Amino acid sequence: MQLNKDLYIIGIGPGNLADISRKAYQVLNEVDVIVGYKKYIECIKELTREKQQLYSTGMRKEMERVEKAVGLAAAGKKVALISSGDAGVYGMAGPAFELIAKNDIAIEVEVIAGITAANAAAAVLGAPLMHDYVVISLSDILTPWDQIKKRLKAAAEADFITTLYNPRSSRRKMQLQETQKIFLKHRSPDTPVGIVKSVGRDGEELMITTLSELPLEKVDMLTTVIIGNSNTYVAANKIITPRGYKI
Amino acid sequence: MQLNKDLYIIGIGPGNLADISRKAYQVLNEVDVIVGYKKYIECIKELTREKQQLYSTGMRKEMERVEKAVGLAAAGKKVALISSGDAGVYGMAGPAFELIAKNDIAIEVEVIAGITAANAAAAVLGAPLMHDYVVISLSDILTPWDQIKKRLKAAAEADFITTLYNPRSSRRKMQLQETQKIFLKHRSPDTPVGIVKSVGRDGEELMITTLSELPLEKVDMLTTVIIGNSNTYVAANKIITPRGYKI
Repeated sequence: MQLNKDLYIIGIGPGNLADISRKAYQVLNEVDVIVGYKKYIECIKELTREKQQLYSTGMRKEMERVEKAVGLAAAGKKVALISSGDAGVYGMAGPAFELIAKNDIAIEVEVIAGITAANAAAAVLGAPLMHDYVVISLSDILTPWDQIKKRLKAAAEADFITTLYNPRSSRRKMQLQETQKIFLKHRSPDTPVGIVKSVGRDGEELMITTLSELPLEKVDMLTTVIIGNSNTYVAANKIITPRGYKI
Repeated sequence: MQLNKDLYIIGIGPGNLADISRKAYQVLNEVDVIVGYKKYIECIKELTREKQQLYSTGMRKEMERVEKAVGLAAAGKKVALISSGDAGVYGMAGPAFELIAKNDIAIEVEVIAGITAANAAAAVLGAPLMHDYVVISLSDILTPWDQIKKRLKAAAEADFITTLYNPRSSRRKMQLQETQKIFLKHRSPDTPVGIVKSVGRDGEELMITTLSELPLEKVDMLTTVIIGNSNTYVAANKIITPRGYKI
């Protein structure tokens, strides 16, 4: 395969080599350098070759990785910058393009889309995302909580299926509880809720529960939460949102 | 590869064999029967083998395909039922699980997630989906227009990045125009809008425009439209929504 770009920004999906796209796999196998968060580098290490350079850093070092990847690409290396899920959803594509545009760096870039957590979690829960849906991150590190709350209210009122990213961490517990309260004002306590931990990875766990019984303490940063809309139901142990077909 | 399920519901992504997941590719290569809309069967025909049975029907025959796939799986065949994009997003996963649950059919099912149009279109536009976003279908065949409008208003008011599926057809032109009006009440006329036709397929076309200048007549059923949030901007010919990092 001829690599005709300088920098590939790649979503590796949930984190196993089966859910990765064929193109992502091939490009990761052929670039000179792979840059990513250390846990994600681990996920794909099996497909790398000895002569490839791997550059990883820890949590919250996103800008360091972006600068490294863009710098190496500008210096003539073929580089892959990886995110888990889809790099375009709260991932590395945004900061990479921001840096490139701000500094007017002349490199060719391709984003290779990946399976984001909403779709990966939905697949193991059944078919909860079959109608209009929102994706909201509950992390208030980069976004004020008031703005997140406004979006949660809008999603609850307008009956969107709602997928929560970064729902809860050891230091940040209030947001998920608040979210539950907001949704209980607009949706039945029996609304199905799916919780998937480490989707697609070793130790994947899933639970189907309801809005009122959502076990807050079981939710952490590796968990994706999907709240159904007013038509969502559970049958044969699957969460199903009807699209409207006559069955 | 050992196929340990009876029915695989597979999202084939935008419609080329590079964007398909490695697992989807392998399963499609090994099942006895592949069921799908005829255009999507064409997309993957190259990977099929002579002894595999292909069953395709035309538009709006979704339930016919679901019944066929579930029936063959119940009869002991290994079956793949395919959707474009992700089968769990306005795709075949919903009606399949509904039919299985309603008729209490004892088959083992796995959904293999695919890249949905929102993520595929975002990848070619830059990084528009880097913050909270909604996915809304403008098709009023199965959903009343009033309900869709309510969701559009909520998305516009709460500053969600908004991806429109099925935005406009030869018979259905009003919805996109109305959507533009709704968004213009809440967002700047200069808000970046990305339009991608036939993403990932032959004849892919993309255009970066603004909310007020959105060329309605260029949008059809094969088009995905992404409307930025209030922070989205265009630089170096890419649509970028900042996540909040200091660049």
